[in-house]
Amino acid sequence: MIIESTSNNKIKDIRKLNEKKYRDEEKKYIVEGEHLVLEAYKSGNLDEVILCERDIDFGVPKTYVTEAVMKTISMLPSTSNIIGICSMKDNEIDLNENILILDGVQDPGNLGTILRSAVAFNLKNIVLSETSVDMYNTKSLRSAQGMNFYLNIKRINLVEYISFLKENGYKILGTDVTNGIDVKSVSKNEKYAIIMGNEGNGMSDKVRELCDKNIYIDMNENCESLNVGVSASIIMYELNK
Amino acid sequence: MIIESTSNNKIKDIRKLNEKKYRDEEKKYIVEGEHLVLEAYKSGNLDEVILCERDIDFGVPKTYVTEAVMKTISMLPSTSNIIGICSMKDNEIDLNENILILDGVQDPGNLGTILRSAVAFNLKNIVLSETSVDMYNTKSLRSAQGMNFYLNIKRINLVEYISFLKENGYKILGTDVTNGIDVKSVSKNEKYAIIMGNEGNGMSDKVRELCDKNIYIDMNENCESLNVGVSASIIMYELNK
Repeated sequence: MIIESTSNNKIKDIRKLNEKKYRDEEKKYIVEGEHLVLEAYKSGNLDEVILCERDIDFGVPKTYVTEAVMKTISMLPSTSNIIGICSMKDNEIDLNENILILDGVQDPGNLGTILRSAVAFNLKNIVLSETSVDMYNTKSLRSAQGMNFYLNIKRINLVEYISFLKENGYKILGTDVTNGIDVKSVSKNEKYAIIMGNEGNGMSDKVRELCDKNIYIDMNENCESLNVGVSASIIMYELNK
Repeated sequence: MIIESTSNNKIKDIRKLNEKKYRDEEKKYIVEGEHLVLEAYKSGNLDEVILCERDIDFGVPKTYVTEAVMKTISMLPSTSNIIGICSMKDNEIDLNENILILDGVQDPGNLGTILRSAVAFNLKNIVLSETSVDMYNTKSLRSAQGMNFYLNIKRINLVEYISFLKENGYKILGTDVTNGIDVKSVSKNEKYAIIMGNEGNGMSDKVRELCDKNIYIDMNENCESLNVGVSASIIMYELNK
């Protein structure tokens, strides 16, 4: 059977997942396009698929819809012919490994870029402040290219959590454009939680106070700062060496 | 005098600069907001300013407009109270220095991010393929944070230009996810033109054939590729050391 009605109840429920409010209520989210659906499947995160004018078997329930119906679900300029539904999962932070903390990163493209680089450079733990952009929105997921499925990601109040990390032997490294130590000089022998701040304003004051030291990336003085996705990536690249 | 009419001829002409066609005809472009206007001024690129409910003197002609008029020019969600008009300038590529070549980069945010990192890591020459996104659109300029004013930027047919660079002693380094040499191993003693490809498809075939070798960034095999802004930045960061 192919669902042809855009007001079908199941379709209505799926469409609602494009809004953060409903994602949080249902603990579910949408991934669009074959690449992301495949990554969701490979990592055991795929619950069901919605298909339009194609068929592919992932061993999960399938729903067939018309292109008109798919258009009402898809958030992409060119409608996907496959969409996956995934459940949000709590992945515990691995307290033996470094952690990247994002304090108020606002741009979904930046968040996705950072998740992609985290996998590339073997940093498995990501902690998001409650003020950071939602990682389950279409743009974040698209920029992450499915790499979110390989990471432990936690969203939590940072002030409390940073205290907890200190008790667990983490050095807290803030990032600041000029103050602190060059990221190239950071010893690889300690356990770090590195904090990246908001695109315009950097770290919040309360979080800044909790840092043990700051690190920076050496650069030409004509450039005030790097894009946060770039600076997070270079720091992870250096710590991975 | 404050211009109150949105159909004023001068305002109409300025508004047209939001379209690439007119920018190319007039050889002029708009920069929005105090930070970009200031960078345009510092680098001698500011021709005139449009002001709304404020006054500031850069020694260039000023036009005062109402908020309603400014709204029809501004491309930002929150209308700027200052907009600058700049002339496109031909900055010659410095053939004693490394060059970053962008072959079909499509996302204005990625282009801007790359220009920002180029200044940070002392890479002064940027060459754009004719297929790359326009560097004078609002999003590119905003992501570049005014760093475009510190760079020599040329837009040209790559196939011919790469041949010219070879004759001038450049080694042409392509980028490929796995094939080639690790960017960490690249000798700093040669003159390079490094080519970054399109977000989805990498370098074009014709350009790929012209490369002397490929470089890559070492990463976890679960990650197929990095965001192009990140990989360009890491390569420039390494070559700057």
